[in-house]
Amino acid sequence: MASITFGPDNITVVAAEGEALNVVAARAGVALRSDCGGQGACRKCAVVLESGELRAKDGGPVESRPADGGVEVLACQAVVVGDAVLRVPAENRAADLTPLAKTLGHVAQKLAAHGVDEPLAMRRCVEIKAPAKGDSLADVDRIFDALRAADPHLRRLSADLPTLRALPTVLRESDWSVCTTIVDGPDASDLVNVSAACDIGRTMFGLAIDIGTSTVAVSLVALNTGRVVAAAGKRNGQIRYGDDVISRIIWTEEHEGGPETMRQAAVATVNEVIAEARAAVNVPAADVIAVTVAANSTMMNFLLGIPAGPIRRDPHTPPASWLPLFTAGQLELDVWERAPLMCLPTVSGFVGADITAGVLATGLAEAPGLTVLVDVGTNGEIVVGMEGMLVCASCSAGPAFEGVGIECGMHGAPGAIESVAYDPSTDEVAIEVIGGRAPQGVCGTGFIDLLATLFETGVLDRGARFIPDFPTRRLRAGEYDEPEFVIAFAGEHGATRDIAVRQSDIENLIRSKAAVHAGIAILLGKLHLPPESIECLYLAGAFGSRLGVRKAVQIGMLPDLPAERVQYVGNTSLAGAHLCLVSREAREQVRALAAAMTYVELSVEPGFMEEYVASMFLPHTQTERFPSVARVATG
Amino acid sequence: MASITFGPDNITVVAAEGEALNVVAARAGVALRSDCGGQGACRKCAVVLESGELRAKDGGPVESRPADGGVEVLACQAVVVGDAVLRVPAENRAADLTPLAKTLGHVAQKLAAHGVDEPLAMRRCVEIKAPAKGDSLADVDRIFDALRAADPHLRRLSADLPTLRALPTVLRESDWSVCTTIVDGPDASDLVNVSAACDIGRTMFGLAIDIGTSTVAVSLVALNTGRVVAAAGKRNGQIRYGDDVISRIIWTEEHEGGPETMRQAAVATVNEVIAEARAAVNVPAADVIAVTVAANSTMMNFLLGIPAGPIRRDPHTPPASWLPLFTAGQLELDVWERAPLMCLPTVSGFVGADITAGVLATGLAEAPGLTVLVDVGTNGEIVVGMEGMLVCASCSAGPAFEGVGIECGMHGAPGAIESVAYDPSTDEVAIEVIGGRAPQGVCGTGFIDLLATLFETGVLDRGARFIPDFPTRRLRAGEYDEPEFVIAFAGEHGATRDIAVRQSDIENLIRSKAAVHAGIAILLGKLHLPPESIECLYLAGAFGSRLGVRKAVQIGMLPDLPAERVQYVGNTSLAGAHLCLVSREAREQVRALAAAMTYVELSVEPGFMEEYVASMFLPHTQTERFPSVARVATG
Repeated sequence: MASITFGPDNITVVAAEGEALNVVAARAGVALRSDCGGQGACRKCAVVLESGELRAKDGGPVESRPADGGVEVLACQAVVVGDAVLRVPAENRAADLTPLAKTLGHVAQKLAAHGVDEPLAMRRCVEIKAPAKGDSLADVDRIFDALRAADPHLRRLSADLPTLRALPTVLRESDWSVCTTIVDGPDASDLVNVSAACDIGRTMFGLAIDIGTSTVAVSLVALNTGRVVAAAGKRNGQIRYGDDVISRIIWTEEHEGGPETMRQAAVATVNEVIAEARAAVNVPAADVIAVTVAANSTMMNFLLGIPAGPIRRDPHTPPASWLPLFTAGQLELDVWERAPLMCLPTVSGFVGADITAGVLATGLAEAPGLTVLVDVGTNGEIVVGMEGMLVCASCSAGPAFEGVGIECGMHGAPGAIESVAYDPSTDEVAIEVIGGRAPQGVCGTGFIDLLATLFETGVLDRGARFIPDFPTRRLRAGEYDEPEFVIAFAGEHGATRDIAVRQSDIENLIRSKAAVHAGIAILLGKLHLPPESIECLYLAGAFGSRLGVRKAVQIGMLPDLPAERVQYVGNTSLAGAHLCLVSREAREQVRALAAAMTYVELSVEPGFMEEYVASMFLPHTQTERFPSVARVATG
Repeated sequence: MASITFGPDNITVVAAEGEALNVVAARAGVALRSDCGGQGACRKCAVVLESGELRAKDGGPVESRPADGGVEVLACQAVVVGDAVLRVPAENRAADLTPLAKTLGHVAQKLAAHGVDEPLAMRRCVEIKAPAKGDSLADVDRIFDALRAADPHLRRLSADLPTLRALPTVLRESDWSVCTTIVDGPDASDLVNVSAACDIGRTMFGLAIDIGTSTVAVSLVALNTGRVVAAAGKRNGQIRYGDDVISRIIWTEEHEGGPETMRQAAVATVNEVIAEARAAVNVPAADVIAVTVAANSTMMNFLLGIPAGPIRRDPHTPPASWLPLFTAGQLELDVWERAPLMCLPTVSGFVGADITAGVLATGLAEAPGLTVLVDVGTNGEIVVGMEGMLVCASCSAGPAFEGVGIECGMHGAPGAIESVAYDPSTDEVAIEVIGGRAPQGVCGTGFIDLLATLFETGVLDRGARFIPDFPTRRLRAGEYDEPEFVIAFAGEHGATRDIAVRQSDIENLIRSKAAVHAGIAILLGKLHLPPESIECLYLAGAFGSRLGVRKAVQIGMLPDLPAERVQYVGNTSLAGAHLCLVSREAREQVRALAAAMTYVELSVEPGFMEEYVASMFLPHTQTERFPSVARVATG
């Protein structure tokens, strides 16, 4: 094992011989730029080797250039052979705390500027004043005094039984110099571990988890810098029990031990994603000392093993809005068993912790004007903020935009078509595929493009039906004579089979977009505010960074706003969980936000069904509400 | 099973056929007077049978007298045959909350007047408003709202994971009427159980535990009335590892797994005493829902499995002063596993929770003038209070007054000589024996009497040495020619063997009394206050109610105060634990008291050794400090 130090912050990590330097840097919490994806082409990951040695991956000498104080090497091309000291030039540090930094509220901006601020758990080495003759201060009070002197921000301190049992021996065997793990709880700071072996400078990690109905995503975060060092995602394994929350809840009710089976399925997927993220940067489970979880109410219940039945029945009550701190061991997650686990707060059965996380991450509640967050996952949730007032609702969008329940649908993974443009003059479809691979299916971003381009070119009418006599070879009768549009024939763009969207798939997608639009319209109506008064609309969800927000307006999913007022902000649920991992202010703010959010139940809201039906058209029955949408097709 | 209701408070308990009515009454928290010990003689346990039936113990008709509204029967003579409704006349209720009520501080007096006041745990049945359409309040918030409406004193509420898992199902299966168990923690009230089966009117119990080095004692307390319904005590089984705390700590250090072995020994004795107390009134383990523990620092560590080594080494630091709430299950006590367990706070390695409990119970800190608490157990602890200032110390008295390490010594149990008077004119020794039995040994109270009578009659000189030519057949050369005084020859008072006190035993007892006196003198000296300014001296410890406080002055254990200023107050450690079980104010006060107590380490205190040596005389080298002590013997 070698010791690798990264300047100018002097972060030291232990690395194995042969380990790639960019992996070691990530594990140290040093986020390097990487525009070429580690191909050695962009030179954005260049670091200066000040002392020690590095090698190329093949064992030969690594390519280097002279540089001030040493030689410059590319982190993606070098591997560890022994101890080394490196310096990271300021211009090569990844600039953003998270991919969202540009759009985040003040907590996130503060963190981006200053790094972490009282993480949920931290490891701190302290030297303790050994007791002098006549000084009979209790061991635990002595360690508390030392911790308080080192960090005046600590709350009232407490210690748990395993720590109390270890304390007298560890303190004396370590000669009053110990490594502590402290949890920043809502009321008190808890000392949950003491050990004699001080891991001086060793980076500890936190894990932010977002459990969506269709997808589970995690960010592995270095707690010294607050930066994401690895990310991973995966289809939620619960899909075998149902595509959406309602069908899964029914499954748990109809099967003996249902909640426990579902809990195990949740834990299994989460642990697979955790393993993937840890493996990417070689972080052992024991070094992951804090966890935050954002999820919709049903997924949160499933993870905790709480029966979710009431969520599917009127009035859709969740079991709890705010949850106490758990430990990762209690929930059987594969990280340090004593790691504190914070579940972000829930507002209602259908506005869960994923949404409170999103409100936190976007800084929605701080925005001066009318601001809207639309999070399209398996459900669509909408939050409207105006001068500190927060109103929210959930609409049953369904998982169509996540590619679930659609023949050619897929998750936004390599092989997914994320951009589609149909040219009727050539009858060709131009596509872009994630990872530049052969297309295998279409993801949410691709479907928004597809609806927009088919409507714009007149393949679909205003009722979202294929126009039977449209002059194209791509429109054909598919299975059971159902009309379908072939995006890519087998062989086209390397596709191994025909990739086609059916009339019933289109209807699924239209129902999703209509539900979202109707939800926004009803919430704005409750505040007596017209859509054009929206100053900023954040569109969140796992669409992918290529989402064309203008297209989402064209198909009538979002109100007709100028493009500059609509911003795609990615997975704000995960971003909010990340903030709570590294900031006490974020943890306090998210609780206050959840308490401040007023839930509106759309299903009992007068006018919702009418608005929903009107929104099933492209873009809407009332075309005057979409003046900017260029109409080519006829209704 | 029968249902027995006691008026006028309408407390209902379930009883088995054939169960004695006084046992059932105790289990209901209805403490009846009993001067004759259940012999049917004193008629103080008479109750009025208003409806239903009772039988005599032999199955025949129970003796009864006509009474207003029914017939009067003696609870100690009647057994249950079926449902019955009884009324307890006010004059037959046991008057005191605890045996200490006369001397207690305001918390105890308040409790004696008003019963319990926010016990550590309580069971409460609540009707919850079922959710209406559109009301998506979380289940847990709904139950919290109902609990707060029923009890405005609740703190911020929280719920643990097992309760959250049970909640959705229990609420709906019970049709929104549930039985809850709530723990009154230091920061929050915790909902730790919900069940659909409401135990309407069923009495729940708490357990106050005092773990002394030599003796473990418990009080089983009915949480509806706050009264002790059963008490039990037992020699601490750890005695096999050493008589005093120091030798036991050494044992744990010299044996592999020592703290764990000692923990198991502590738990085993405590569980035996718990079983005895529960059996006395037929209370199942599951109905004991709260536990408080007072103990000296070492015994507390042993119970918790914390290494106690540092306590025996300068500067004698305890591992913790204030401990978090544990659960009984965590500590393996045989009560309801989720019962909260509060350890009273510790001041130092040698002034433990037993003493903070005593300060709480006696109201020492509230007394207007100079007040002193002296607790003589295996160690002697002293607390001096003056206008809110509290100073405390521990002196190594040793277990001599507990009968440990003395050939003829024994615990204050039946067969123990508790009163001794020697008459030189007849050469007879008059004795009183606990339980009126044949004498088997001498307990602490007896030893104080013995020293006083032997000194007063001149058998012992001022140096506490036997006067060899004293004209008595009772003084003889014992084993190894060591002088000894025979209190009872075999055959005298029914003794089966000679009961004699040896010169070395006398020296042991003298060291104990000298340590106590020197400790008091040094503490008063630090405050520049003479002993005669003491307005009240509370003498606590397991001496027994027959202790002659005047005798404790005569032998120079206590300063020379008028008898009316000295009060024997019994086991204040257990009394303090009892108060914390039934009163939030007591729990808050005891923490404040522990923080306010300044510990003085006598071993480093200038003058302590001189005072100790001077106190080894009878009553003291400076006889002018004991003007009231009649001196017969010559020095």
